[in-house]
Amino acid sequence: MSGIGFTLLGSDGNARRGRVTTAHGTIETPAFMPVGTQATVKAMTPDDVRATGAEIVLANTYHLMLRPGVDRIERLGGLHTFMAWPRPILTDSGGYQVMSLGALRKMSETGVVFRSHIDGAMLELTPEIAVDVQRRLGSDITMVLDECTSYPVAKDEAARSLALTTRWAKRSRQAFVERDGYGLFGIVQGSVFDDLRQESAEALIAIGFDGYAIGGLAVGEEQDVMFTVLDATTPRLPADRPRYLMGVGRPEDLIGAVERGVDMFDCVLPTRSGRTGQAFTPRGTVNLRNARHADDPRPLDAHCACVACRQFSRGYLHHVVKAGEIIASMLLTSHNLAYYQTLMRGLRDAIAAGRFQAFASEARAGLAQGDIAAV
Amino acid sequence: MSGIGFTLLGSDGNARRGRVTTAHGTIETPAFMPVGTQATVKAMTPDDVRATGAEIVLANTYHLMLRPGVDRIERLGGLHTFMAWPRPILTDSGGYQVMSLGALRKMSETGVVFRSHIDGAMLELTPEIAVDVQRRLGSDITMVLDECTSYPVAKDEAARSLALTTRWAKRSRQAFVERDGYGLFGIVQGSVFDDLRQESAEALIAIGFDGYAIGGLAVGEEQDVMFTVLDATTPRLPADRPRYLMGVGRPEDLIGAVERGVDMFDCVLPTRSGRTGQAFTPRGTVNLRNARHADDPRPLDAHCACVACRQFSRGYLHHVVKAGEIIASMLLTSHNLAYYQTLMRGLRDAIAAGRFQAFASEARAGLAQGDIAAV
Repeated sequence: MSGIGFTLLGSDGNARRGRVTTAHGTIETPAFMPVGTQATVKAMTPDDVRATGAEIVLANTYHLMLRPGVDRIERLGGLHTFMAWPRPILTDSGGYQVMSLGALRKMSETGVVFRSHIDGAMLELTPEIAVDVQRRLGSDITMVLDECTSYPVAKDEAARSLALTTRWAKRSRQAFVERDGYGLFGIVQGSVFDDLRQESAEALIAIGFDGYAIGGLAVGEEQDVMFTVLDATTPRLPADRPRYLMGVGRPEDLIGAVERGVDMFDCVLPTRSGRTGQAFTPRGTVNLRNARHADDPRPLDAHCACVACRQFSRGYLHHVVKAGEIIASMLLTSHNLAYYQTLMRGLRDAIAAGRFQAFASEARAGLAQGDIAAV
Repeated sequence: MSGIGFTLLGSDGNARRGRVTTAHGTIETPAFMPVGTQATVKAMTPDDVRATGAEIVLANTYHLMLRPGVDRIERLGGLHTFMAWPRPILTDSGGYQVMSLGALRKMSETGVVFRSHIDGAMLELTPEIAVDVQRRLGSDITMVLDECTSYPVAKDEAARSLALTTRWAKRSRQAFVERDGYGLFGIVQGSVFDDLRQESAEALIAIGFDGYAIGGLAVGEEQDVMFTVLDATTPRLPADRPRYLMGVGRPEDLIGAVERGVDMFDCVLPTRSGRTGQAFTPRGTVNLRNARHADDPRPLDAHCACVACRQFSRGYLHHVVKAGEIIASMLLTSHNLAYYQTLMRGLRDAIAAGRFQAFASEARAGLAQGDIAAV
């Protein structure tokens, strides 16, 4: 096998049930990838992450370049060994973070030069460097360096940016070293403009990638805008390659995007929320900081099999959130990731059973229902 | 059985191998109790704590009175259910923390009145209240309210304080409700004065307790001073009751105290150090923040079976400590508690085998040897 494999196991409407095959194992899709920015999914051990059902994690090239540095990770055996995650890893290109540095970075046709906020060192990211860095990290799935437009953006600026992203995509493809089980994903840009999204998709398909990401979304636009872009984009992408919607999202976003043919997701929401006392449940979000939970002996979600729901009451979770205890972050991150993985498994099973719409309707109704009444 | 049981299984010199029996299970002694101040051993789930080998944890009555409050814990099923620790729990009386409040508390013969730093409420601790609060928490082992003298202290002040502590001990004993599997420990005070320690021990024995703690140590005195006090105290205590040295200590302290006939210990050192990048090993302490670990592919301790040592390199631990990641606290706390429990198991096995001195010599030599050379 050259590159990574993708098997389309079934579909239901535009929703797809598939399997991605990489050097470090398979990923059942639709799949949610927890974010492990600095080579750790915050507040979780790798065993904890795996116990939630996750099969792949995302790590951030930008953060790892700055600290501990790519040379160091390479010397210590590569990212899988370093972070003790023997399963698939997808790394971003670092572009998204570098672009948001503003005055601290300088863009050119070649790439981006920027200053490390940790030690002041000057660093460079070009399409070639981004691909090489990810190869050295040992990423199963490498992302091309792209320019992610902000939202909203004028169409001529979006077109200029897209042209650069396309030229960088070509250079990324040329720089990528083909190896069995390792793949390179292109990133469709074009903001909210259907013709630009179409142009981007066609240009990337002409270059040829192992998978196609949809970037430039989850940057502040309304959900219906995102869905409209997906409606205009996913039908342009090859059916036999995985599709990855970057940085998305809330449970409702995942359901709607799967409905539109997306296979892979990543988002900091479940992990970040877990560190601020917010939990995701089939009945919407619950803020454990709220005093109404203080005397509640019930679990956060009686149907959830995570450690937080099996062993602790809402009253305890409220206490440790209020007390600023580390276990609050640990338990709520575990719960939120378990919830996300359970949702994805539900979506996969529903697609396989040809009842995606029924599942989606039930899930949406549950989310709209709101939390159980206070005791 | 009324109270808690203690079986002396063997001895080697003054070192004792025993077993404490409580309502929630047995504790092999010599035993180390991890500290779970706010109903959580910081950065650990109960399963994590258990995996280190711990059989009992300590929780702090003072902190729990303030937040979430004893009424609340009682309503939520008691402390064992609340913190999901179904094994033995020892609670302190809250006295030690209250005494250190300085101007915020007012002492009298009756007890102590103090102001909550969390919500400003006025709270009271008397010998009777402290015993009642611990009963309501469901503690297997209740500690009497005592006055812990600072160090150094004049002898007349130590004598005055000890007399109060003894009167409080009598009131505590009278207030304690006898229940099978639940016990009350007295606390020997008297600072560094042999005759006061002797007087304290005799007075407590006359009252009669399920176990005898040695308080007022680990308050800044040198190790040889502590050992001298132990030499003067443990021979005065009944052989058929467990002895608990409060707030101790470093690995060398534990070895020397076991040598002098102590059975139980608690200390924040392994957990607190775990949150600041410091690790305990058979070759002494290791500061993972030190740059010499940055490129080290070796585990922290090649002979340790904890998750940090099985799965991660020193280079990774250095990275997550420097990056301020929560996993650093999780991994190093796991390691430190595993180290402490392994040390206690080693001491127990050595006493049982009649080779305590050989074990202690080897352990001390290892600790003095210092960390492995840098790569």
